[in-house]
Amino acid sequence: MYDRIKGFRDFYPGEMTARRDTIDTLEDTAQRYGFREIGTPALERAELWTDKSGDDIVDELYSFEDQGGRHVTLTPELTPTVARMVVAKQQELSKPIKWVSTRPFWRYEQVQQGRQREFYQTNVDIFGSSDPEADAEILAWAGDALTNLGLTDEHFEFRISHRDILGGVLESYDADLEIDEAIRAVDKSDKLSTPEYHDALVEAGLTYDQAAEFDDLIAGGDLEDVAAFADSERVDDAVSNLQNVLEAAEDFGAREHCTISLETARGLDYYTGVVFECFDSTGEVSRSIFGGGRYDDLIESFGGQPTPAVGVAPGHATLSLLCQRAGVWPEEEVSTDYYVLQIGDTRPEAARISRDLRERGHVVETDVAGRSFGAQLNYADSINAETVVIAGEQDLENDEVTIKNMESGDQTQVPVEEFPGDLERPTISDFE
Amino acid sequence: MYDRIKGFRDFYPGEMTARRDTIDTLEDTAQRYGFREIGTPALERAELWTDKSGDDIVDELYSFEDQGGRHVTLTPELTPTVARMVVAKQQELSKPIKWVSTRPFWRYEQVQQGRQREFYQTNVDIFGSSDPEADAEILAWAGDALTNLGLTDEHFEFRISHRDILGGVLESYDADLEIDEAIRAVDKSDKLSTPEYHDALVEAGLTYDQAAEFDDLIAGGDLEDVAAFADSERVDDAVSNLQNVLEAAEDFGAREHCTISLETARGLDYYTGVVFECFDSTGEVSRSIFGGGRYDDLIESFGGQPTPAVGVAPGHATLSLLCQRAGVWPEEEVSTDYYVLQIGDTRPEAARISRDLRERGHVVETDVAGRSFGAQLNYADSINAETVVIAGEQDLENDEVTIKNMESGDQTQVPVEEFPGDLERPTISDFE
Repeated sequence: MYDRIKGFRDFYPGEMTARRDTIDTLEDTAQRYGFREIGTPALERAELWTDKSGDDIVDELYSFEDQGGRHVTLTPELTPTVARMVVAKQQELSKPIKWVSTRPFWRYEQVQQGRQREFYQTNVDIFGSSDPEADAEILAWAGDALTNLGLTDEHFEFRISHRDILGGVLESYDADLEIDEAIRAVDKSDKLSTPEYHDALVEAGLTYDQAAEFDDLIAGGDLEDVAAFADSERVDDAVSNLQNVLEAAEDFGAREHCTISLETARGLDYYTGVVFECFDSTGEVSRSIFGGGRYDDLIESFGGQPTPAVGVAPGHATLSLLCQRAGVWPEEEVSTDYYVLQIGDTRPEAARISRDLRERGHVVETDVAGRSFGAQLNYADSINAETVVIAGEQDLENDEVTIKNMESGDQTQVPVEEFPGDLERPTISDFE
Repeated sequence: MYDRIKGFRDFYPGEMTARRDTIDTLEDTAQRYGFREIGTPALERAELWTDKSGDDIVDELYSFEDQGGRHVTLTPELTPTVARMVVAKQQELSKPIKWVSTRPFWRYEQVQQGRQREFYQTNVDIFGSSDPEADAEILAWAGDALTNLGLTDEHFEFRISHRDILGGVLESYDADLEIDEAIRAVDKSDKLSTPEYHDALVEAGLTYDQAAEFDDLIAGGDLEDVAAFADSERVDDAVSNLQNVLEAAEDFGAREHCTISLETARGLDYYTGVVFECFDSTGEVSRSIFGGGRYDDLIESFGGQPTPAVGVAPGHATLSLLCQRAGVWPEEEVSTDYYVLQIGDTRPEAARISRDLRERGHVVETDVAGRSFGAQLNYADSINAETVVIAGEQDLENDEVTIKNMESGDQTQVPVEEFPGDLERPTISDFE
């Protein structure tokens, strides 16, 4: 007997039903916004990551040499791939480019709750607009998608900031400050006690007084205070851009989901402007559910023309944790409209009924294993059949079949030529 | 600039639209038959293939050692994975188990038309029934799926046989015959001239007379002749099983797609019973479109209880070649219901209209890039917008918007409060 690899999941039909519902909701919402589905390779040249990314992601790559001697990797995220695709067709593609896709990615990480080595994301990106409306549309999609899953503002919030606010405020201190290290400290601050957090800031080059002042200012989250404190064009621009994005989000119906949270830094990724993270409002799911933001420099760094970009990529593992916590995760059960049960040699009639019902779009099973009445009824129950159509030899001699409602157990006989007849979705109530 | 890896495809939105339509049709058809979607890992332990499979597939594996020292491989096919999954939960799963999934697989092969190194298949399998109805249901699903794609019997045929017919007939010759080699010759026979084919059979151990006789018998495809010639229980059973499958296929509406073709061997795979391949009826697409069959021994060889199984896995590359040849491949174009065009500062109203239309389920885009009237109209055209709703500052001062049909170019002004008002899918004809 073989086992599956650690960090990789098998999804059996019940759980898969709930996941498919969730994926469909995200994709359907994206489609309504005019995001277009793309298909992308599972393997890329490893250089897409080793040339530019931080060591963390490079250490986690499933990379190897293929039989043609290429250094390739299973893709740990989508962004470099879509950047490559934009560059490859930048003349032909009409802008803004709005893409969506759902697929697995792979990272050799520590396996824990909500984090597997194979994980699924729905990536949603806009290329070719630097306007705040593009950032706001990403927020609006994310808000609508979560709302369409049954979540409300009681369940989630988007914590939003701008990369240049933290950077610009830190810049206004001594030039000796290690800004990247300070940003990393802010990024981790919710996992640290206040003294630990201040220590980390001091480590980066602030005095203890400055650390306390900085902490107050950032935790306060008042954009005007921050702009006044930094007194720099960089922070003024960032504040004004963030305000414009929030105004556009107001028009797009997403403002209510957003809380200004200047601690939100999104690590030291390729982000360049507005960044945001989705959190469980109750804090019960402690890690961020997903994050996104603006990355205006990536396409150019991939050899393309300067092309602003903004995107978000909900991961389905953390999203399912949030939905389960909020009580809106779909039932992990398959559903079946009809089971057509055969007693004796009634296959031709059972097959005819099954085909007629399938043509109407229903989920219909019939016996393909020569099983007894009881075994078939058990099976129908196991697949949650709503209605069982019993095609028995004796009934059929009288040109009848029996319709059984599996919830109530009620059943009735109906003329076989009336089933399904002209009815789109016949149930027992049509014949009582 | 980075390039993608040879044998791997990027699918941009136009082509992806056609592929998604095709995948949806196959999956929707499977769902109506009660096949349940599963989700499966991209990586498995390489032993799932190296322990049992032929050298061909092992040579083509994208396998490597992961950071935990496991010898892993990108999966080249689904069957061993589903076999592993059935074994892992064989007590819990109610039988018959009917599963479907669509995903990529990977083989390091020669790249050619219809064959990439990353390729997509829809796998459909039934576990736990040895009855002919299970084989017939697989054929019925495949037939319905192709029919739902717009294909007819003029476009495709299923060539069907039983593994034991070829094997059993060959067994009836001298014991010196290399049966596997002879089956391999039959499998390649459509690519060989008659003398070459007979040479190959002679190579395997037949005399020239026997080769000619065998060729006649198999090409004739008459089940009774074959049974009489072999005069063995093995061939009698195989013939009778094949006849039973075809009878069930008659009831299930799939008989008309099937042609008995005793050359159909499906190589030396794990198949044990009925096997079939789908071909282009005109022969224009020369390779088989896809194949399938019964593999009753696999689950047991994976350490499970004996569990009969039958399945099929259409590959989307060859299927698209057939659909294109037959003229039924979907348009490779995105579609858009509405583009809401902004002139001046009309974002709030444009956003309100967009949201109202999206709530009705439509595909709606609006400007997120601050573009001019002309640029927006060009963009609307590039995404095949059916209707453009023009929200202009002047119109809105009169509480009006302009509705433009992009095909006819006709346009009319409508009161903004009536758009979309109570209409589910307002078009210009609602206001003329």
